[in-house]
Amino acid sequence: MRLVDLRSDTLTRPTPAMRKAMAEAEVGDDVYGEDPTVNRLEALAAERLGFERALFLPSGTMANQVALLLHLPRGGEVLAPEGAHLYEYELGAPALLAGALVRPVPAPGGRPDLKALEEALRRGPFQAPIGLLALENTHNLAGGRVVPLEVQRRVQDLARARGLPTHLDGARLHNAAVFLGVEAREVARGFTTAMVSLSKGLGAPVGSLLLLPKELEAEARRYRKLLGGGWRQAGVLAAAGILALEEGPKHLRRDHEMARALAEGLFRLGLAVDLGAVETNMVYLEVEDPEGFLQGLRARGVLAGRVGGRVRFVTHRDLMDEDIPLTLERVQDLLHSRPR
Amino acid sequence: MRLVDLRSDTLTRPTPAMRKAMAEAEVGDDVYGEDPTVNRLEALAAERLGFERALFLPSGTMANQVALLLHLPRGGEVLAPEGAHLYEYELGAPALLAGALVRPVPAPGGRPDLKALEEALRRGPFQAPIGLLALENTHNLAGGRVVPLEVQRRVQDLARARGLPTHLDGARLHNAAVFLGVEAREVARGFTTAMVSLSKGLGAPVGSLLLLPKELEAEARRYRKLLGGGWRQAGVLAAAGILALEEGPKHLRRDHEMARALAEGLFRLGLAVDLGAVETNMVYLEVEDPEGFLQGLRARGVLAGRVGGRVRFVTHRDLMDEDIPLTLERVQDLLHSRPR
Amino acid sequence: MRLVDLRSDTLTRPTPAMRKAMAEAEVGDDVYGEDPTVNRLEALAAERLGFERALFLPSGTMANQVALLLHLPRGGEVLAPEGAHLYEYELGAPALLAGALVRPVPAPGGRPDLKALEEALRRGPFQAPIGLLALENTHNLAGGRVVPLEVQRRVQDLARARGLPTHLDGARLHNAAVFLGVEAREVARGFTTAMVSLSKGLGAPVGSLLLLPKELEAEARRYRKLLGGGWRQAGVLAAAGILALEEGPKHLRRDHEMARALAEGLFRLGLAVDLGAVETNMVYLEVEDPEGFLQGLRARGVLAGRVGGRVRFVTHRDLMDEDIPLTLERVQDLLHSRPR
Amino acid sequence: MRLVDLRSDTLTRPTPAMRKAMAEAEVGDDVYGEDPTVNRLEALAAERLGFERALFLPSGTMANQVALLLHLPRGGEVLAPEGAHLYEYELGAPALLAGALVRPVPAPGGRPDLKALEEALRRGPFQAPIGLLALENTHNLAGGRVVPLEVQRRVQDLARARGLPTHLDGARLHNAAVFLGVEAREVARGFTTAMVSLSKGLGAPVGSLLLLPKELEAEARRYRKLLGGGWRQAGVLAAAGILALEEGPKHLRRDHEMARALAEGLFRLGLAVDLGAVETNMVYLEVEDPEGFLQGLRARGVLAGRVGGRVRFVTHRDLMDEDIPLTLERVQDLLHSRPR
Repeated sequence: MRLVDLRSDTLTRPTPAMRKAMAEAEVGDDVYGEDPTVNRLEALAAERLGFERALFLPSGTMANQVALLLHLPRGGEVLAPEGAHLYEYELGAPALLAGALVRPVPAPGGRPDLKALEEALRRGPFQAPIGLLALENTHNLAGGRVVPLEVQRRVQDLARARGLPTHLDGARLHNAAVFLGVEAREVARGFTTAMVSLSKGLGAPVGSLLLLPKELEAEARRYRKLLGGGWRQAGVLAAAGILALEEGPKHLRRDHEMARALAEGLFRLGLAVDLGAVETNMVYLEVEDPEGFLQGLRARGVLAGRVGGRVRFVTHRDLMDEDIPLTLERVQDLLHSRPR
Repeated sequence: MRLVDLRSDTLTRPTPAMRKAMAEAEVGDDVYGEDPTVNRLEALAAERLGFERALFLPSGTMANQVALLLHLPRGGEVLAPEGAHLYEYELGAPALLAGALVRPVPAPGGRPDLKALEEALRRGPFQAPIGLLALENTHNLAGGRVVPLEVQRRVQDLARARGLPTHLDGARLHNAAVFLGVEAREVARGFTTAMVSLSKGLGAPVGSLLLLPKELEAEARRYRKLLGGGWRQAGVLAAAGILALEEGPKHLRRDHEMARALAEGLFRLGLAVDLGAVETNMVYLEVEDPEGFLQGLRARGVLAGRVGGRVRFVTHRDLMDEDIPLTLERVQDLLHSRPR
Repeated sequence: MRLVDLRSDTLTRPTPAMRKAMAEAEVGDDVYGEDPTVNRLEALAAERLGFERALFLPSGTMANQVALLLHLPRGGEVLAPEGAHLYEYELGAPALLAGALVRPVPAPGGRPDLKALEEALRRGPFQAPIGLLALENTHNLAGGRVVPLEVQRRVQDLARARGLPTHLDGARLHNAAVFLGVEAREVARGFTTAMVSLSKGLGAPVGSLLLLPKELEAEARRYRKLLGGGWRQAGVLAAAGILALEEGPKHLRRDHEMARALAEGLFRLGLAVDLGAVETNMVYLEVEDPEGFLQGLRARGVLAGRVGGRVRFVTHRDLMDEDIPLTLERVQDLLHSRPR
Repeated sequence: MRLVDLRSDTLTRPTPAMRKAMAEAEVGDDVYGEDPTVNRLEALAAERLGFERALFLPSGTMANQVALLLHLPRGGEVLAPEGAHLYEYELGAPALLAGALVRPVPAPGGRPDLKALEEALRRGPFQAPIGLLALENTHNLAGGRVVPLEVQRRVQDLARARGLPTHLDGARLHNAAVFLGVEAREVARGFTTAMVSLSKGLGAPVGSLLLLPKELEAEARRYRKLLGGGWRQAGVLAAAGILALEEGPKHLRRDHEMARALAEGLFRLGLAVDLGAVETNMVYLEVEDPEGFLQGLRARGVLAGRVGGRVRFVTHRDLMDEDIPLTLERVQDLLHSRPR
């Protein structure tokens, strides 16, 4: 029985082209700044995404955390949309590393409520200094939804008016760009720093990028090494990363179409899926007994994830075209087998 | 013109009796555990509040933070009612010191929504471990409202079922006890640790207490010293603290009556005060232009505070009986002088 | 039997004049910056010690740690003379609070070896950035010895040449000034920040001062509050602190004379005391069985301390003139009673 | 002109066999614990090195730091031999991450002076709790020297007697094993945790291992992810790591022979090299003007490193047999060209 794995787009495996590139990559010691393939990836990423510099790191979490260390004073606070990955899924790292609290701002559909954001920006004399405004685009826990560029700009304006930096968690930035029909650099535009993951829909095995201005580079490299991200011949990974950056985005449209097809199919089966929220490669489902539902699916060869009280399906490059119809058949089978 | 200062009950000055006690206190070096007056205060507090041990510290913030250090793993998370002092007014200390994030739980009137709390307690494998459930009673930002003992018990039950400790920020615990008509120890009952402030309504010049079980004492003293709370002949302050603990509570009823009288007067003047929320010694007011309102009051000899977008009045021991009618007159004068 | 307590000068109790001042002190809420006595102490200290600003805190540890937080980047390093209090006796606070390592520099007699210091200042690209040079004067673990002003200046020069700030742990700065026969401000001159303790030889019950430039004041107050040092009517303590600062230093000469007399007496008794090292109010003794020696003394009504493997005697204001001869008699008795 | 790069053994590039293994590696999402090649590497390493579990991480720094987080309480202290990598070259990470200080213990030749260690273990009541004893074998800054197993055992005994854990920084553990003529597991025996680097002499492009007991595994994985070490299809790197672990050690003898030949040649040229200290793959040289010496070498096609005030040569797998004679010729040429 074919197993359809819809738990996450982090599951994508390197393509044959990536494997070949890895096997042939010219490498050096990246801690000394001498890995030519890492250097090539960083230059390419900076150019493509419209920043002065890029830094290649082992994970999106490390890239986000280096950004927090760069921007936040000790005892500072970062405002982030509720459900932000850096608040929910980075294991308290903002507190342990930067010594900073996170304040979640109401953000329906991943879009920060601007009035709430302004209120959160008002500080009394005995309150922690706000050091950073963060966004996430696409916003995972909001269903992979896209934050409109206009919302991004208004958040950036609020920050600029207060002299505050901004950071974009763009783990799935290219998904947002594809949905919006713009270049990736348009989504990253105006942020002080941005993170982009190469290992999700873009398909690289390992690695994320931190985009940043020149003057923060030395400090960013110091923090990367302090956190244990000083790797050696990382060019073998960067070689795959270059392909992910160059070739990966063009596959995302298919991921989105599969997600849409899956969402519509689930809706037709009578399940509680919010079709309007399915903009990229995720489908969130409210079911009464998520654990039982997931087990039933697993028994039928479909893996999905549980996020909070919901079930999450993520489409990605390693799926075959028939996987979506197959999934819908299996969900239907599960629904018929269960007492309603 | 008599100045009426309603900014906070932290403004209370030591009474003549306290000053006399301070002048005559028997003292020693508390870092060596040899200050007899500190030891007496700690024994008294432990006994009165129903804990095995008490620790005398320079501030409620330090007491809360020592509690977080005791309970939380690095990279852990404390669940606290929204608006909790330890989240809003301790300058990011939970992050810098314990390396822990705070998750605010919806809490209308300072009472955590139990359903929301249960949801927040559900954790996936890639999320920060929850290390502590905290409450605040009375809850300052909720208007000085009292959390009913039944709510406390249910929160404690949720914690116990998961093997989690609980901490009570009881900066104004005695105000809650007076409102509820119970002994102070009833309000502190069932928590692993609790903080009580001596320098607010109880009138001591400096100091708070951390109540705790015997087995946490050594570690608590280590953290107190690490934070710079190892003071020497602190018995001079403890002498006032003993009086605050013994005599202070009986004055709180008057504070509450003054707050009620003030709230009703403001309401009669047409101001947006939620009478139902005035349970202890605070009155919160929604006005359109808080800064202008506060300036107008100040010009008329009344000081109040601004908390978020609201105006806050706090009654306390140093007020004279005529201060409330005087305040209302002056508010009325301000209202008449302003274009509506 | 009269008990002679030579464990530490932190044991000094407030004088009757201090108690009176505390009882009569005009106070306010220091968190609001409104305690007139605290403000008076801070202004007095800044003026006397030659700094723009002073901050009153509960302990010397907190003052040192606020200085480290002000000066050090995260992951930075402070160079300090070996045996420095901030390395040995502040419970790892530099690491937990400022996230910084301490590098002890060889310092015979408390005076940093300048060649070793220069070597420690040389850093490679993969090493922690040095953020601060610290000194301690008098240097406790070096026997209460005084660092000559010329040595201080040369350390300051090394720092200045590299754009680094300097901090003086002057817990016993006035002892150094008395020994050197200069004004206290001469000892503090040239440092970016300095700490002075009021609760040791100067006799105040509680409190230390952080001396600092104007531009660091706001941040210093933020860190003080974050650590739990935001106290309320601290004027009761500041009143004693003012007397300690004004009257305390003139008593230190007697402390030093007592220490010298004690040291010479012990030497005459054949004990291993380094007379040349006794410059201020401490006498360190090497004995074979320190624990047994201390117990023998205690049984004879003399309390001394154990520091590392040595026995420490500290003279202070609360001793009576006859305490030194009495101590020597008792030591002699102990020596006679023991098999050699 | 052939460039001879002797700066570090971290410069080794993956062999053709490693590249092939990387290209063909079976992979999965390691964050989900599903990368079969990572799992295979971890099982192999645990078995070979005699531990219950192993964890694959991006760097030796991260492995060391996770170990410190596992063992040390906040505000604790780790005792390490002077010159330890975790003190000198991890950018203050022990302080920022674990909130712990490092205390360097005198260690001639990388071997902790046991008397000094015992003294450092003695703590007074106001000192930071010691949480860990660390060793480094081979000890890089001591010249790549090997710590005898007997010394390791005695350090472990001291720790055990106090209930303390031990950690071995075994970045070059296999070099020690080859020198001692024992299995790698003999060098790691008796430590609570150990780190082994795959990317130095063993030749893997990226990665280190943390060896640990079963009961610490879950927490170690939490910290790894918190620090940003949660990588996805890391199997591509693990595939090289398996070869490094299986095949790498047998090449180290040649590295050592080259280092010895180099050292003897330099000695014959009259340079200040301590022949007795050359035990593994490093040669340290004292020269008067290290910067000028290194520049002269560079101009002649030889790269060496500068470590503190010394010049360091490191031999490794990517060198050709003729590189050592070539290097000696070039050094001789440099010496002749310079005024003595």
